[in-house]
Amino acid sequence: MNNTIIFGHQNPDTDSICSAIAYSTLKNKLGHQCEPIRLGLINPETQFVLDYFAVKAPRLLHHVSKEAENAILVDHNEPQQSAIDINEIRIVEVIDHHRISNFESKEPLYFRIEPVGCTATILNKLYKENQIEIDKKTAGLMVSAIISDTLLFKSPTCTKEDIDAAHELSKIAEVSLEKYGLDMLKSGANLKDKTVEE
Amino acid sequence: MNNTIIFGHQNPDTDSICSAIAYSTLKNKLGHQCEPIRLGLINPETQFVLDYFAVKAPRLLHHVSKEAENAILVDHNEPQQSAIDINEIRIVEVIDHHRISNFESKEPLYFRIEPVGCTATILNKLYKENQIEIDKKTAGLMVSAIISDTLLFKSPTCTKEDIDAAHELSKIAEVSLEKYGLDMLKSGANLKDKTVEE
Ligand SMILES: [Mn+2]
Ligand SMILES: [Mn+2]
Ligand SMILES: [Mn+2]
Ligand SMILES: [Mn+2]
Repeated sequence: MNNTIIFGHQNPDTDSICSAIAYSTLKNKLGHQCEPIRLGLINPETQFVLDYFAVKAPRLLHHVSKEAENAILVDHNEPQQSAIDINEIRIVEVIDHHRISNFESKEPLYFRIEPVGCTATILNKLYKENQIEIDKKTAGLMVSAIISDTLLFKSPTCTKEDIDAAHELSKIAEVSLEKYGLDMLKSGANLKDKTVEE
Repeated sequence: MNNTIIFGHQNPDTDSICSAIAYSTLKNKLGHQCEPIRLGLINPETQFVLDYFAVKAPRLLHHVSKEAENAILVDHNEPQQSAIDINEIRIVEVIDHHRISNFESKEPLYFRIEPVGCTATILNKLYKENQIEIDKKTAGLMVSAIISDTLLFKSPTCTKEDIDAAHELSKIAEVSLEKYGLDMLKSGANLKDKTVEE
C-alpha cells in the first residue's frame, strides 16, 4: 500500500492528470512514497499528451480511503468534486488554483492555493523551492497542463506567471508552444467533434 | 487610503502582531502598498517585543472594510476570529498555520497554510522565495513570534522548520534565543501575574 495517493478532480482534465503525475514525481524525489491516481476517464486531449511524452495513465479509482493512508489533492479543493469517500482519508496537502469552498480540516495541513491559471504553474514553483530539477517528460506534462487550462494563454484566468512557466517548461520538454500547443488543443477538439458526429 | 491592510486574529498574540508587521514590510519591499493593523489590545509579551526592537504598534481597528480595498489575513483563517466586517472586504491572501474552517472565497486567492508552529516560519520562507533580505528589526519580530507560539520550542506544534527559522532569525536580530527568549516569555508571564494580583 502506498503511503500517499495524489489526484485531481472527477472528470479529470489535462491539469488534473498531469499535475497529479508531476507532483508525485517531485514528492518521490524528495523521499516520499506517492502514487498518482485518477478519478475518471482520460479525455482525448490528455491521451494525446500521455502518448506524446510516452507516459502511462495513472490508475483509475473511485474509492480512495482503502488505497493509502494519506491523500494529496491537486487542481481542486471542494469535497464534492473529489473522491466519493474523501471524508474517510487524511488529506495532508492541497495544491490548487480555484476558489476555496466547503473545505474543512481537523488539523493544520499544507494548503496552497494561488490565483494563477493552472496547478502546474504552482508545481513549477514548488520544484524550484525544493531545488529539484524537472526532467523532460515531467516538463512536457506540466507545459501541456498550462496550455490546456489557459487555452494557449487566451483564457482570462491566464497570468504572467503561467506564461513564464510555460516558456521555461517548453524548453526543458523540447516542444514549440505554438506547434505542439495547437496540435494538442486540436487533438482534444477533433476527437470531441468525431464523437458528436458518430 | 491604503491599498491593502494586513492583520492577525482578535485578541492578538505576538505572532498575530509581529507577522502582520513583518509581512507588510515584505509586501512593501515588493512594491505593494500595505499597512499592518491590529484587531485588539497589545499584550504584555508583545509590548516587550515592540519595545525591545523599537517598533511602533500597528493601528487598532475594529471595522476594516472602509479602511482599504483588500485584506490579507495572517495567523488565522476562520471568519469568526477575524474583523467584525470581514465579509465586506476582499481577502486577497491568507498566510496561516491553523486548521481550515469556514473559509469560503468567491475567487481564487493566495492561500497558504503550512503545518508548522508559527506564521513567522512561513514568512521566513516567503522572504527567501521572493529573494528579499530580512532586516534586523523584522528578524527580531519574527523570531519573537516563533518563541511565543512554540514556547521556546517546547510546544507539541513546534517543527524542525520552526527551530531552524528561529536560529537563522536570531542571528540576524542579534539576540540569544536562550536569554532573550526567556526574558520575553517571562515578561508576559510576570505582567499577567501582576494584573491578577492587582
Ligand atoms: Mn481542472
Ligand atoms: Mn487546473
Ligand atoms: Mn495566534
Ligand atoms: Mn500563530
